[in-house]
Amino acid sequence: MTAQQMPTLLLRVPTPDGVAVAAGKIAQLLPKTPLLEASVNGTSVWFKAESLQPVGAFKIRGAWHRLTDLSEEQRARGVVGVSSGNHAQGVAWAAKRLGIAATIVMPVDAPRTKIEATRGYGATVVLYDRPGGENRDAVAQDLIDQSGAILVHAYGDPWVIEGQGTTGTEITAQLAERGLAGPTRIVCPCGGGGLTAGLALACPDAEIVPVEPEGWDDVRLSLERGEIVPVPDFKFPTQCDALQTPATWPINFAILKARVACGYAVTAAEVRAAQRWAFAQLHLVVEPGGAAALAAVLAGKVPIDGRTAVVLSGGNTDPADFAKVLASSD
Amino acid sequence: MTAQQMPTLLLRVPTPDGVAVAAGKIAQLLPKTPLLEASVNGTSVWFKAESLQPVGAFKIRGAWHRLTDLSEEQRARGVVGVSSGNHAQGVAWAAKRLGIAATIVMPVDAPRTKIEATRGYGATVVLYDRPGGENRDAVAQDLIDQSGAILVHAYGDPWVIEGQGTTGTEITAQLAERGLAGPTRIVCPCGGGGLTAGLALACPDAEIVPVEPEGWDDVRLSLERGEIVPVPDFKFPTQCDALQTPATWPINFAILKARVACGYAVTAAEVRAAQRWAFAQLHLVVEPGGAAALAAVLAGKVPIDGRTAVVLSGGNTDPADFAKVLASSD
Repeated sequence: MTAQQMPTLLLRVPTPDGVAVAAGKIAQLLPKTPLLEASVNGTSVWFKAESLQPVGAFKIRGAWHRLTDLSEEQRARGVVGVSSGNHAQGVAWAAKRLGIAATIVMPVDAPRTKIEATRGYGATVVLYDRPGGENRDAVAQDLIDQSGAILVHAYGDPWVIEGQGTTGTEITAQLAERGLAGPTRIVCPCGGGGLTAGLALACPDAEIVPVEPEGWDDVRLSLERGEIVPVPDFKFPTQCDALQTPATWPINFAILKARVACGYAVTAAEVRAAQRWAFAQLHLVVEPGGAAALAAVLAGKVPIDGRTAVVLSGGNTDPADFAKVLASSD
Repeated sequence: MTAQQMPTLLLRVPTPDGVAVAAGKIAQLLPKTPLLEASVNGTSVWFKAESLQPVGAFKIRGAWHRLTDLSEEQRARGVVGVSSGNHAQGVAWAAKRLGIAATIVMPVDAPRTKIEATRGYGATVVLYDRPGGENRDAVAQDLIDQSGAILVHAYGDPWVIEGQGTTGTEITAQLAERGLAGPTRIVCPCGGGGLTAGLALACPDAEIVPVEPEGWDDVRLSLERGEIVPVPDFKFPTQCDALQTPATWPINFAILKARVACGYAVTAAEVRAAQRWAFAQLHLVVEPGGAAALAAVLAGKVPIDGRTAVVLSGGNTDPADFAKVLASSD
């Protein structure tokens, strides 16, 4: 889908006020996820455990903000989401709670855990052939053309961006509870840039640092070149299924370009090391994509101080995959 | 050590007021661990994630309450703890923060993770031969006789009992934040009965349900017979190292006898199933002993309702052991 094809999404721009509205809604719905303190090379760092959300990822925030703002007429038409799994679960969870029919377009090679969980929330799952290069947005558009359902895009949507930003609102509040000023820096896993853009709106005084997996670091490249650059090779292997987005969207990039200095990429081995560290030090199950920001911090790629927050964005991983990571030592 | 040998510990009885004092101290020190909601067979159950404490277990509570109540003169003498690992880390963590020297008596077959973490907090670790039947209390007494240090018993200590009870104070407060009355029932892993007795003091209106591993269910047997019964076979194999206590103590049993109807035992396979469930549903790393209460709930041994709380008491487990559990399917 091109930018020209999404006029309804561009009717408004996401704003800090929108994040505040979303934060109010989320606070009514869900307790804050914990902000855990742990030492990295002698410096206290703050870990925002979004893996402990009911769907195992922060995606519940944007989905809730989006779906609760639909009109009755829109709700009756149902919603369509496109996702490798975490946004899928977020939309399915919110739709179930609001009594809205949800159809989710998911890659056939998504983790079984994520596909089953999405179906478990009552959503209809339509699989597309990601390894074969099938265009997921085209599959979604066909469904929308047939049913008149509302698209809830995983990152290129003002409500979704504002909703994800509430992660930053909570971090600021939780640091304040401990007598600290807001975060100096928030390091976050980055796929299409929904969370990254939301954090930039929520925390205007913090440096926002997106981290992507090697080979899928299109946001890093886009920031470097000053324009949206897609992933060069859609077949580059990565274990970070949650961060396999082909390109960021204009609505996200407008915010990123203004607020984010640069992005970072992490290797598969650095991600595994981060998952093992989170297991041992925090007793958390973090999925590969959810551990990308931590990986950059542990690898010394991103500076830290006593008010650096690291988002652990999701925990949905298959047990056999996680067992392999625990057995690895690279 | 017999009851006759511990006169100083029996100078006072743990009380609900003592739990309230401890809760005030803990609230100053640590944020509440999350109370996570998840569905078990269609019923919402509340999971108290004590595995997310800084030392990976609730033991930090009792250790902090005990050590902060020591006089200057007592602090100067240092403390001795006896523990398979979680109490060890709790005492070591609190002692380090307070500048008190700590020596911990640990079994030679304790998880490496726990021994290393205890040393990491700066404590001196003295290993004893648990598999060979060496008496850990005698080893500790020798150290105390030599150094004049203060014993911080893992469960037979009024401060420790009160401190562990603050887990229940938090559960009650967190249910209230969600508009619910206090817990109807708290299901908790049980070793020597420190946590169980503390919860009974903290939550007088809740049914307290201790769960032990098969073969180490001496509290269950003791409640059945109305008197303290030790574990019949100290060599019975169990993966629940945190719950391998030979017998409860009079100070604990006095409370348990008055407040606890009965205990339950869970099998090794039930514990593994619970660890896998916590991985998949809650994205938490829970050690075998920490999963005992959840195991009893999932096995249908303990009834549940919408105000049942289950304590996940610890998350300190070796990665290779956890990988094996994830790969198992029993």
